Amino acid sequence: MTTHVQPVLDVAGDHVARMLARTEELLEEIASEHGAALGQHASSTLAAGGKRLRPVLVFVCAGAAESTELVRAGAAVELLHMATLVHDDVLDRAPMRRGRPTVFWSAGRDAATATGDFLFSRAFGQLAATGSAAAVRALSDASSSLARGELMQRDDAFATDVTEERYFVRCTLKTGKLFEAACRLGAVLGDPGEEAADALGRYGDRIGLAFQVFDDVLDLSGPPDQTGKSRGTDLLDGTATLPIIYAREVDPGLREERPSTTSAAEALCDRIAATGALERARERALEFVAQAKEILPPLQLADNQRQALTLVADGVVERYS
Amino acid sequence: MTTHVQPVLDVAGDHVARMLARTEELLEEIASEHGAALGQHASSTLAAGGKRLRPVLVFVCAGAAESTELVRAGAAVELLHMATLVHDDVLDRAPMRRGRPTVFWSAGRDAATATGDFLFSRAFGQLAATGSAAAVRALSDASSSLARGELMQRDDAFATDVTEERYFVRCTLKTGKLFEAACRLGAVLGDPGEEAADALGRYGDRIGLAFQVFDDVLDLSGPPDQTGKSRGTDLLDGTATLPIIYAREVDPGLREERPSTTSAAEALCDRIAATGALERARERALEFVAQAKEILPPLQLADNQRQALTLVADGVVERYS
Repeated sequence: MTTHVQPVLDVAGDHVARMLARTEELLEEIASEHGAALGQHASSTLAAGGKRLRPVLVFVCAGAAESTELVRAGAAVELLHMATLVHDDVLDRAPMRRGRPTVFWSAGRDAATATGDFLFSRAFGQLAATGSAAAVRALSDASSSLARGELMQRDDAFATDVTEERYFVRCTLKTGKLFEAACRLGAVLGDPGEEAADALGRYGDRIGLAFQVFDDVLDLSGPPDQTGKSRGTDLLDGTATLPIIYAREVDPGLREERPSTTSAAEALCDRIAATGALERARERALEFVAQAKEILPPLQLADNQRQALTLVADGVVERYS
Repeated sequence: MTTHVQPVLDVAGDHVARMLARTEELLEEIASEHGAALGQHASSTLAAGGKRLRPVLVFVCAGAAESTELVRAGAAVELLHMATLVHDDVLDRAPMRRGRPTVFWSAGRDAATATGDFLFSRAFGQLAATGSAAAVRALSDASSSLARGELMQRDDAFATDVTEERYFVRCTLKTGKLFEAACRLGAVLGDPGEEAADALGRYGDRIGLAFQVFDDVLDLSGPPDQTGKSRGTDLLDGTATLPIIYAREVDPGLREERPSTTSAAEALCDRIAATGALERARERALEFVAQAKEILPPLQLADNQRQALTLVADGVVERYS
């Protein structure tokens, strides 16, 4: 998405770029306004940047609207996303994320857990400041789903019989719901209003699924210098992702494999690629993108908003390609 | 408080008892409505019960008001409290709480972290459903403070130079702010209204401090069959509480002690008691109670509400005595 955000901004209008810049300022302010120690951990998390894809979704779904409430909503979805990453890194004992040491690695388990809780709290604080209860509810629903998805993934770790259906339920909970919330927030606080929130929410859910499937393909195929991590971390965690599920159908012996080293995982990545599972999963991601785009025509949207939403949908499966 | 809640209910009125019962129902519903696995962990956490002191504060501060919004606020403060307990137990690797196995112990680190995040999310979801942004803001502020307090406590672990002042800052963040939020929520959503929220919030802060100091005294002195844990867990964690700070002034050799077994900690509890530090800390807790009660006379409150608030203030330092 990083490389694809500019075309979206070109189409969506300067107001989206301005709101993105204000979101960065707000995130920095939130990280720095609090206790010195916590501020430092939170700052390093927020500074690690990332795609800011969820705030972009908020703003693009809002149409021509530009407001402090939208900036707060953009910051809120990013804060919630960050909070879950920080907690995930604690559970995974992950040393690096996006080429930087994680909060867990640099500050320890306790500080990282507290930092995640803090980012969580500030997400809701930002939405509370918008004065919109519907906005808080959207984030709260997404946040509960994230916790359920996280638990489901860990329950399924090293299971060899995870189905495609169960994988999609997990993706909906872990990724789709927050994308959906971002789009709902844009609708509710922006031009489209409450009445378009369901449809734009469904659009968000579909591109969330596409994003997650594509992310799972990248875990097995992505060049480490671009993804910032070695290939096959899902294999090491025992997380059955869509390409792994597909590969097991072709090469059932893969079910028995439990790599414990990075090089063993890399070798398995090649074996999985040889089954054609990566292409099949990529196709599935593209179907979700198509479903997302089909939601747009009946909606009352300005031409440039429709175009921006189409670009975002295409962008989630165009990373590193 | 368990034994002292009945006199409060007798004075405050039947509506408080009714709202407490509805809070229990709502908490059960929240725990059971979600994914089977998560529901089970959340249920065991919520069922472990506890004093429900924070919901009582919400209702008593609300005066004669009785509403679904107040019930949601009562559930929200309890959910947030529970979320922090579940995460604390993960960090402390605690096997038991209130005589029951912790979520960490029975379901593991991953499930407990996700359960805490889920309870967090539902707390904000309940407040969002009240439609009051002021309510969400109160909880979000408390929640950020809790995370900061948690971090501060762990930063200070095994430090020998923690001052009384620093201890009180930590108590404010870890305990006072959520008590304050409970009282604010009662004011804002109940009869007293926005204009009494600051004063009732200060009342909450004071009894929160009293509660925490008294809790820290009980950790060193409380009979295990009543507190549900062995004496001196704070000594094992390296948490410098007020009685420990006072005891070190009288017996400086205590600074060097780092017990690593339950029996060594129990022996240290006796040595601390011999310094008179427990009485001195108890006195300090009583001063906070007195400060809390001094806030009440200028407020426009019904007689029975004033009486109930006084009973609650006295109750926080009358546990197991």
